[in-house]
Amino acid sequence: MGQGLKNRGCTRADVDERRAAVEEFSSTKLNAIASYTIDPESARSNIENMIGCIQIPLGFVGPLHVIGEYANGEFLVPMATTEGALLASVNRGCSLVNAGGGVYVRIVGDAMTRAPVFRTKGVSHSLEAIKWITENIDAVREAAEATTGHGKLIGLETFPNGRNLFLRFSFHTADAMGMNMCTIATEAAARLIEKETGAVMISVSGNMCMDKKPAAINMISGRGKTVIADCTIPAYAVKERMHTTVEAVVDTNYRKNLVGSAMAGSLGQNAHAANMLAAMFIATGQDPAQVVEGSMTSTLCEEVAGDLYISVRIPSLEIGTVGGGTKLPTQAEALEIMGCRGTGKSRKLGEIMAAAVLAGELSTLGAQAAGHLGKAHAKLGR
Amino acid sequence: MGQGLKNRGCTRADVDERRAAVEEFSSTKLNAIASYTIDPESARSNIENMIGCIQIPLGFVGPLHVIGEYANGEFLVPMATTEGALLASVNRGCSLVNAGGGVYVRIVGDAMTRAPVFRTKGVSHSLEAIKWITENIDAVREAAEATTGHGKLIGLETFPNGRNLFLRFSFHTADAMGMNMCTIATEAAARLIEKETGAVMISVSGNMCMDKKPAAINMISGRGKTVIADCTIPAYAVKERMHTTVEAVVDTNYRKNLVGSAMAGSLGQNAHAANMLAAMFIATGQDPAQVVEGSMTSTLCEEVAGDLYISVRIPSLEIGTVGGGTKLPTQAEALEIMGCRGTGKSRKLGEIMAAAVLAGELSTLGAQAAGHLGKAHAKLGR
Amino acid sequence: MGQGLKNRGCTRADVDERRAAVEEFSSTKLNAIASYTIDPESARSNIENMIGCIQIPLGFVGPLHVIGEYANGEFLVPMATTEGALLASVNRGCSLVNAGGGVYVRIVGDAMTRAPVFRTKGVSHSLEAIKWITENIDAVREAAEATTGHGKLIGLETFPNGRNLFLRFSFHTADAMGMNMCTIATEAAARLIEKETGAVMISVSGNMCMDKKPAAINMISGRGKTVIADCTIPAYAVKERMHTTVEAVVDTNYRKNLVGSAMAGSLGQNAHAANMLAAMFIATGQDPAQVVEGSMTSTLCEEVAGDLYISVRIPSLEIGTVGGGTKLPTQAEALEIMGCRGTGKSRKLGEIMAAAVLAGELSTLGAQAAGHLGKAHAKLGR
Amino acid sequence: MGQGLKNRGCTRADVDERRAAVEEFSSTKLNAIASYTIDPESARSNIENMIGCIQIPLGFVGPLHVIGEYANGEFLVPMATTEGALLASVNRGCSLVNAGGGVYVRIVGDAMTRAPVFRTKGVSHSLEAIKWITENIDAVREAAEATTGHGKLIGLETFPNGRNLFLRFSFHTADAMGMNMCTIATEAAARLIEKETGAVMISVSGNMCMDKKPAAINMISGRGKTVIADCTIPAYAVKERMHTTVEAVVDTNYRKNLVGSAMAGSLGQNAHAANMLAAMFIATGQDPAQVVEGSMTSTLCEEVAGDLYISVRIPSLEIGTVGGGTKLPTQAEALEIMGCRGTGKSRKLGEIMAAAVLAGELSTLGAQAAGHLGKAHAKLGR
Repeated sequence: MGQGLKNRGCTRADVDERRAAVEEFSSTKLNAIASYTIDPESARSNIENMIGCIQIPLGFVGPLHVIGEYANGEFLVPMATTEGALLASVNRGCSLVNAGGGVYVRIVGDAMTRAPVFRTKGVSHSLEAIKWITENIDAVREAAEATTGHGKLIGLETFPNGRNLFLRFSFHTADAMGMNMCTIATEAAARLIEKETGAVMISVSGNMCMDKKPAAINMISGRGKTVIADCTIPAYAVKERMHTTVEAVVDTNYRKNLVGSAMAGSLGQNAHAANMLAAMFIATGQDPAQVVEGSMTSTLCEEVAGDLYISVRIPSLEIGTVGGGTKLPTQAEALEIMGCRGTGKSRKLGEIMAAAVLAGELSTLGAQAAGHLGKAHAKLGR
Repeated sequence: MGQGLKNRGCTRADVDERRAAVEEFSSTKLNAIASYTIDPESARSNIENMIGCIQIPLGFVGPLHVIGEYANGEFLVPMATTEGALLASVNRGCSLVNAGGGVYVRIVGDAMTRAPVFRTKGVSHSLEAIKWITENIDAVREAAEATTGHGKLIGLETFPNGRNLFLRFSFHTADAMGMNMCTIATEAAARLIEKETGAVMISVSGNMCMDKKPAAINMISGRGKTVIADCTIPAYAVKERMHTTVEAVVDTNYRKNLVGSAMAGSLGQNAHAANMLAAMFIATGQDPAQVVEGSMTSTLCEEVAGDLYISVRIPSLEIGTVGGGTKLPTQAEALEIMGCRGTGKSRKLGEIMAAAVLAGELSTLGAQAAGHLGKAHAKLGR
Repeated sequence: MGQGLKNRGCTRADVDERRAAVEEFSSTKLNAIASYTIDPESARSNIENMIGCIQIPLGFVGPLHVIGEYANGEFLVPMATTEGALLASVNRGCSLVNAGGGVYVRIVGDAMTRAPVFRTKGVSHSLEAIKWITENIDAVREAAEATTGHGKLIGLETFPNGRNLFLRFSFHTADAMGMNMCTIATEAAARLIEKETGAVMISVSGNMCMDKKPAAINMISGRGKTVIADCTIPAYAVKERMHTTVEAVVDTNYRKNLVGSAMAGSLGQNAHAANMLAAMFIATGQDPAQVVEGSMTSTLCEEVAGDLYISVRIPSLEIGTVGGGTKLPTQAEALEIMGCRGTGKSRKLGEIMAAAVLAGELSTLGAQAAGHLGKAHAKLGR
Repeated sequence: MGQGLKNRGCTRADVDERRAAVEEFSSTKLNAIASYTIDPESARSNIENMIGCIQIPLGFVGPLHVIGEYANGEFLVPMATTEGALLASVNRGCSLVNAGGGVYVRIVGDAMTRAPVFRTKGVSHSLEAIKWITENIDAVREAAEATTGHGKLIGLETFPNGRNLFLRFSFHTADAMGMNMCTIATEAAARLIEKETGAVMISVSGNMCMDKKPAAINMISGRGKTVIADCTIPAYAVKERMHTTVEAVVDTNYRKNLVGSAMAGSLGQNAHAANMLAAMFIATGQDPAQVVEGSMTSTLCEEVAGDLYISVRIPSLEIGTVGGGTKLPTQAEALEIMGCRGTGKSRKLGEIMAAAVLAGELSTLGAQAAGHLGKAHAKLGR
């Protein structure tokens, strides 16, 4: 078998042909993978070399009461996972936050970044290039924005270091997650900068962006949406539904999420934000590799007037409601469940996701505080 | 609608009933989500509140030549994604590494960790507890291993800090990813320690484990499998298939992955390891939230005798070939494509995954070196 | 002996009396400590409970050719240390950079920060407080600047997280290192914010400042002066004076400072920037605890046209030429050697320090490349 | 003036001659620097190019009640600084910890590390080298220990990554800080490894050591002494002497040292451990650049039965009581004040230093809790 891209077709017949070749090469039968229902033509821009589909069980949690600027009311939240006990746990969290009147949530930052690295002749040359950029920021913006109907350049930071010059471009990208939009716009701007300054673009992504790797710069400054959320859970609900106390949850969060995370050299401090994010990302056609950035969430708990105050800060939530996997049939339906499909919906989606992360954090902290994490897993058969 | 867990059934009828409730609640039609083929009873331990399935397009890359201790020969590697251009890119990488004779890969660490945090009375009490543990390590091991048929306690590190005592347990977990096995075994050991020392377990997971959050402790010491791999790509192949030069790729890796990552405060230095890991994790039923740890990969390039040497180190690859999502029909078939289903296969899977990560890193570095990352995305229609 | 502050006097007699008490308490004779020559009254604002002086051997390196915006020409650089071989090494580095025509150096950032943390009622309250601050930034500035003759508020970033609101104030502080100026000005602004918003200031220093602790925020965004410098060393000089090759130095820097630092989870990547900074800080009356921030320096080497290009980026160089220890007699003289005493000199000092750090990095990398670090230490008798 | 090392003499006349040359070069008079009393011959192995001494005001704090394994009783602690208010503050902390019955302190780790980096041919070669080392660890130890009378090799970790192989050697170094001892011993072992395995040592210090740079590896695993200490301060003392409450101090530590440090991407979480360490390091002839590692201290506070529990963990305290600057006259006397001069005293010194760090942390947290940090600085005239 030659390298697999020779048949480049996207029809079901093309998919069948390729899958048959895989079956032959690997002496397997791929009946389940073949049993998909979506039209492969619709996935033309989502994958190459398609041979079928993976089916991920989809469930939901909720209703979850969200008090956002864009999402207001009760929502069912779809989650796709193969990790038993996750939805049961988040669902319990939803019940608790509802008892607390819902999750208050706001988006405090919203920008996608791309940071090309240029090779210069050294410090002097880098500073000349920065000077040119500063003086010609309008031309740079124009070059970038000419490539896109929706992207708006809203910031440009400069980081010179030796013969390297990093430029961190920030864009508003409307309802797309927007990384590709950024890449294309940044490249156009970078080409202008190359031409005018003599700095040579080495990579349009110089890793100060920073995409799909955990990095302090995103934890501190944000990438995609920066979302903060909180809720106060009445003491009685903590007792009745989590079988523990406010004090125990606060103590657990302190020793585990604050002290333990710090001693481990972690970026972020949370229990399992990545679990909720991964399940929602897969359900709604987001890029699951960007769960990495979301995992730098900060979860905090305090006792306030006897009740349990809990908050999350997700510094870097990279999501969209148009483009990418969002338009595939099952994913589009999952977005529809929350009324988050298409234009004008990405902030609403971000708010719901943050609220669900909070619910999941709450439930797991409660379970650990009650001392039965191991038992919960054992009972649910994993 | 009450909190969604009331109908706890797992039959297709139960799923239908729940989905109908969701449709009504959200005024949607979920036809695509309903069009799944796997038996929901088989997903009983993977999800609660199931209403259907998300279909993720599955493709493959390869053949990929792997020279491992467990995986030897040519493999097709299944990847599930909605990110266009990814498989085409990784596939090109496979072609390149094959031209280099394949990817040499070895597993240098293999242990799953759990680190409970205990509350003690202070430094003196923590040291007494450590003393007891040290002197009674056999009893601790026995308590832990009594809970599991496969897990073996192979290490226990102690980190006292004020009134906190963290114990980092390491287990061999055979072919399971093993986190739940660890959790249960650790909890049993912890209960013994509590009883004998008076230290109070606050959380069985004290975040020095550290699961699904990026943390230096795992980047340095590893969690799950630590895998290293390398390959030397002939200069002609770099030129003909990536349209760039060895020097340009090395320079790109240096400025982007080394300098850029360092300036961003990143854990790990790579181009997009998380992309390949997420696509393979979803295809094979791994826990996608654990892509977080895998994203701390280190990718290095050097010119050696005119050719391109490239290597990856994945410090923390948390995978299994039994348990979790691996037994679901589509996922099991995906494993089968690589001959990685079931007992005795997890190391083989780890080797193939590392080789595929290397191929993906190579291709993206080449594309960026050739200066057309933006163009590639534009052309593939995203 | 009661707690030592009862005698609060600053005369030589007071110092003698206290020292005698210490001698009695500890059954020692402190003759060397007693043999100081500076007037203790002049140290009144530098120390309490004075009993004498520690003498630190002072040497110098240079001449060092600096091509700065403020420092131009050849400088002798005073360094106080007890670490043998350090000055010999840096001096060799000076000779090398002079052979390269001197160190080009520029200051690209200059601001001192203070970040109080406030306790709020939660997300909603934090956002209200931020809104008030944004709308009343002139009043905030006025409150801050009313406390200082030199400080100018030049930035204010907001970081809300749960019931915590961090405000990162940035000030121009003229030629003082300026941390206390910042603290006082920030506190005044914070009191206004407290009064108007109901947010409660918990600490004027909420550790997002961040002083005397290593933190990504300062590595990325800078604190104090951010200085970049470079130099190209001719290949012949590398060979003749360092007994190694350009290629070997570049390779050493790559494997040690880039790869090794990354694998260790380091902030910054350098050989021993802290050594030069500590020696110059002590010589010139800077705060030696702020060497911590300076230690996050990035050192990079490349081969350019056969010669050795070397650069440093010191993201966070917190220094002054007025205030603090700079006015003590020996320290003031050390500043005078470089023409850096008093008003209008702090940027000049920053440029010279960065150049000296580069020289020291170069020499150590050369020594390690030549494979004789161990031998060098052995020979110099340590 | 040629490069300054031509006159290599160490007599007072040599020092005078060099100083005169500096005075002429820089058109200064260096009378204070000339007014030193120590014999420059005694500093022969501590500095090159000596021209005099810097005088750092020395004070003391205490008595400080220490309950260590090596240090037991009341100690006066010498501190050299130019930062006003520091000693007054630490002294107040001493009074408070004495009210709490003293600081309980223990050393839980004690090893100096050196991590050379080798260049290998790749993964396969690195693993062969590791195999050889594992099988010949006795020969490696013998080679290392042959170079030293006191050093004992107690650990060797291996970190292969591409064509890089890092070996982290750990040594017991008796009462020397021991870095040079380690360097020499490691180099000897490395030469043997080079010869037997063909791996090429690129640098004896490959930055996984890691010296004088902030790095997670040392925060987690320790370097030099790892020291933990705690104390419980009665509520009345908090109120009467710090004019604040237990609750306020705990809250300050939480928001500042835990939350703020985490959000800043810090290694360690403390208020100003580096201040105390720098002042004690300078007083006692330690290497002040190693304050960097000490700055990764963790400070924790809790309310326990109404009183204030406070603890510190200093993961990496690199100190000695022989060698380096400890033998200079003023520094030796400072050590003598604590009964910490010479052989058999380094652990005692480590315990006292940790106790003093705790006292300083306590006082500053109290001051910030009481809301008058700005005012304290203003009043003491800085």
